[in-house]
Amino acid sequence: MTVKRKLRLGAVIHGVGSSVSAWRHPEIQSDASINFSYYQGQARKAEEGKFDFVFIADGLFINEKAIPHFLNRFEPVTLLSSLAAITSNIGLVGTLSTSYSEPFTVARQFASLDHISGGRAGWNVVTSPGEGAASNFNKGAHPDHSTRYEIAEEYLEVAKGLWDSWEDDAFVRDKESGVFFDPEKLHRLNHKGKHFSVAGPLNIARSKQGHPIVFQAGSSDSGKNLAAKTADAVFTGHETLEEAKRFYADVKRRAAEYGRSPDSVLIFPGIGPIVGRTAEEAERKYEETANLGSIEDALQYLGRFFDHHDFTQYPLDEPFPELGELGSNGFRSTTDRIKAKAKEHNLTLRQVAIRSTTPRGDFIGTPEQVADRIQEWFEAGAADGFIIGSNVPNGLNDFVELVVPILQERGLYRTEYEHDTLRGNLGLSFPVNRYAKQPVASGGSESAKR
Amino acid sequence: MTVKRKLRLGAVIHGVGSSVSAWRHPEIQSDASINFSYYQGQARKAEEGKFDFVFIADGLFINEKAIPHFLNRFEPVTLLSSLAAITSNIGLVGTLSTSYSEPFTVARQFASLDHISGGRAGWNVVTSPGEGAASNFNKGAHPDHSTRYEIAEEYLEVAKGLWDSWEDDAFVRDKESGVFFDPEKLHRLNHKGKHFSVAGPLNIARSKQGHPIVFQAGSSDSGKNLAAKTADAVFTGHETLEEAKRFYADVKRRAAEYGRSPDSVLIFPGIGPIVGRTAEEAERKYEETANLGSIEDALQYLGRFFDHHDFTQYPLDEPFPELGELGSNGFRSTTDRIKAKAKEHNLTLRQVAIRSTTPRGDFIGTPEQVADRIQEWFEAGAADGFIIGSNVPNGLNDFVELVVPILQERGLYRTEYEHDTLRGNLGLSFPVNRYAKQPVASGGSESAKR
Ligand SMILES: Cc1cc2nc3c(=O)[nH]c(=O)nc-3n(C[C@H](O)[C@H](O)[C@H](O)COP(=O)(O)O)c2cc1C
Ligand SMILES: Cc1cc2nc3c(=O)[nH]c(=O)nc-3n(C[C@H](O)[C@H](O)[C@H](O)COP(=O)(O)O)c2cc1C
Repeated sequence: MTVKRKLRLGAVIHGVGSSVSAWRHPEIQSDASINFSYYQGQARKAEEGKFDFVFIADGLFINEKAIPHFLNRFEPVTLLSSLAAITSNIGLVGTLSTSYSEPFTVARQFASLDHISGGRAGWNVVTSPGEGAASNFNKGAHPDHSTRYEIAEEYLEVAKGLWDSWEDDAFVRDKESGVFFDPEKLHRLNHKGKHFSVAGPLNIARSKQGHPIVFQAGSSDSGKNLAAKTADAVFTGHETLEEAKRFYADVKRRAAEYGRSPDSVLIFPGIGPIVGRTAEEAERKYEETANLGSIEDALQYLGRFFDHHDFTQYPLDEPFPELGELGSNGFRSTTDRIKAKAKEHNLTLRQVAIRSTTPRGDFIGTPEQVADRIQEWFEAGAADGFIIGSNVPNGLNDFVELVVPILQERGLYRTEYEHDTLRGNLGLSFPVNRYAKQPVASGGSESAKR
Repeated sequence: MTVKRKLRLGAVIHGVGSSVSAWRHPEIQSDASINFSYYQGQARKAEEGKFDFVFIADGLFINEKAIPHFLNRFEPVTLLSSLAAITSNIGLVGTLSTSYSEPFTVARQFASLDHISGGRAGWNVVTSPGEGAASNFNKGAHPDHSTRYEIAEEYLEVAKGLWDSWEDDAFVRDKESGVFFDPEKLHRLNHKGKHFSVAGPLNIARSKQGHPIVFQAGSSDSGKNLAAKTADAVFTGHETLEEAKRFYADVKRRAAEYGRSPDSVLIFPGIGPIVGRTAEEAERKYEETANLGSIEDALQYLGRFFDHHDFTQYPLDEPFPELGELGSNGFRSTTDRIKAKAKEHNLTLRQVAIRSTTPRGDFIGTPEQVADRIQEWFEAGAADGFIIGSNVPNGLNDFVELVVPILQERGLYRTEYEHDTLRGNLGLSFPVNRYAKQPVASGGSESAKR
């Protein structure tokens, strides 16, 4: 009997949404991005749907042109920590940039979240695509694309080293003898590299899951290499099954080249399902939301990916303009895709702008249709799971209530959590402490015999 | 009728305690420093006692000589954020150093905690006394005492500026017109100073209390000046009423010299009450805890304040040794006090070491005796409130159950929270946004008329 490979699911909680105008919908709570009750409700809904994790995206720079959600939102580490206290099984994943932070602090905050939540923390490592972030920090100019990834790689080495400061059985806490810890199981990293000098040790132990789960969200070559080399999971975005399959195979191949099992890097395309009780209801939902904004807003939103390029200078109903290298130092994989799509389908600027503001995607229709499409992608080798981020009102609720039961009936998806750690639920293996002479069993509860 | 001045109370939650050996007591949970249930329980107990706030201390460097609590503990920002979700009125105050962090990130994390908690965040600004921290960060050598305070002052200017990025009525959220915010109420800081360059704006609004409450914990001249100039509250530690009164008057005078009302800077001595149903029971509790550790541990603990000086080289039962300038670049106010006490009372090294490990203090005895002493300090002008941090088992519980009711009966202390923000409960005034043309009422709910 073979155990059927299980689908994994995450949920982006995204306040008023990732579009310019979704907040204008009558059913969207217009302060959702800074409303803690809203986030609590969504996290509980995702936990009710047995999701592996919730995900909080992030950014470090705004100006008056930023989309509403970006202007006034919670900071991920604080938000996830508060959600830890009111949930019990769901993973808590958040973005934090390696370009504008200190590895000691970030390793420590995620380790602390990991303890608070009992082994449910995940860190989405990003390098900050936008130039603007540099103006808010004291680190000089925004590093270029390849330097950012070089920094990220060293940063992750440091963070993982710090997480191993204490072996799993280091804390003896023997009241009789007065021995609180075994000094042989305390390790100082003494990292001295090109970008970082960090001695350690970290002032916090490893949690039940060993290390927080590392997600990675860059899709360029450097991004894919970083993921293949060091990440547990990859967030990505694709518009077609073919594209997603290529990406999936590509990252798995790179992982194998780095000597890792392809199963140790999970691929999560982000999708925005739009579910209706009928196909027409789903279409109506998309139209309702897509038409909330003006074409001017859509052009501005599109410009965000291209170094805030001014798209109002081009005719709306002619083919998408030729942009050369524009946008390739920021969201490179996104801009490459936009350019390629426009060419492939002969899209006008208007069409590109509206689709970029309110993606329609492939996951629209009745609950059965959406479940079919998910199953298709999953079984075709395009995904190990999906991150659900819906821009239509009640998107997550509809998904949990209407689509999840179908996936469960088909035996694709859990009906109960198997574990209480994120690592356990994702089916990823326990990272043995690099200093351990004799491995300690998963969970760190069983002591190694000495 | 005059309104009686009300005592304020905070509670340090300190895991296995601030001493080397308190964890060995049979009634101390030996993993308390990294046990989230323990922190939840203590926070709820403090809220049951109508405390103004809980307080989480912090440090950025450990080695194998550090006290048990420091080795493996939660990081304050994450911990407080999680406590926010399970409490409703109590303030959430934590230490974060200005010497090893970025103002944009820290201003943002405290602002986010402030929103999550509905206006209950407080930040204890410290400059990191120990040299060791430098080895964990990428900022070069540990700045000296005066530079650290210069950095801290500029840092706070930046943080407060960022907190004012959005006027209280900036977010319009008018679905009809599509106006999400009023661009005239968004402000870019554009700070360029000696230590920091930060453009802003911050990507989060002000909370109900305007700014998080700023605490300050340095007691040197520079520390007192920083507090008098910019802080809302000061943490301090004193062994005698006279010393506490001098400190209190000194900080209030400095505040007035900076043009601030003395009432706008609250002084909180930290005390470690030891309460017994009888005076003998209290004494027994102290002895039990003081005798848990060896004299070697006590000497090592003492050394921590003096740049990890080795005190085993001196005879134990002769007068405390002459140390010259040793310790004055780190915990200066603490080491000055230790030196002065030793001279004044002709203490031996053994006595100094044991008292430093397990302070006995002035607040020991029956509930009435402890309440008397609190009332005496409060009415003598030595304190606006106290931070309760007990090193004996169940110290906070005993205080809440036995001492608080007496303070309430005497009309010194609240029986119900007056407000749901920390600022409101502390009786501090609402900080008007620096850019506001017409001030918005406290709470930010009433819009300024234009
Ligand atoms: C699905 C997905 C999610 C992302 N989430 C974030 C985020 O939350 N914050 C952020 O700064 N960047 C985010 N990014 C941007 C990437 O981390 C990366 O910086 C960007 O894609 C440019 O790198 P690349 O050229 O390797 O793709 C995301 C990218 C993708 C594809
Ligand atoms: C009551 C009190 C509490 C303190 N709490 C902390 C703390 O949590 N973390 C920290 O690094 N320093 C803490 N300190 C140290 C001070 O912030 C400061 O760095 C140190 O006292 C040296 O500065 P000074 O010479 O101005 O006193 C505390 C000091 C006092 C007096």
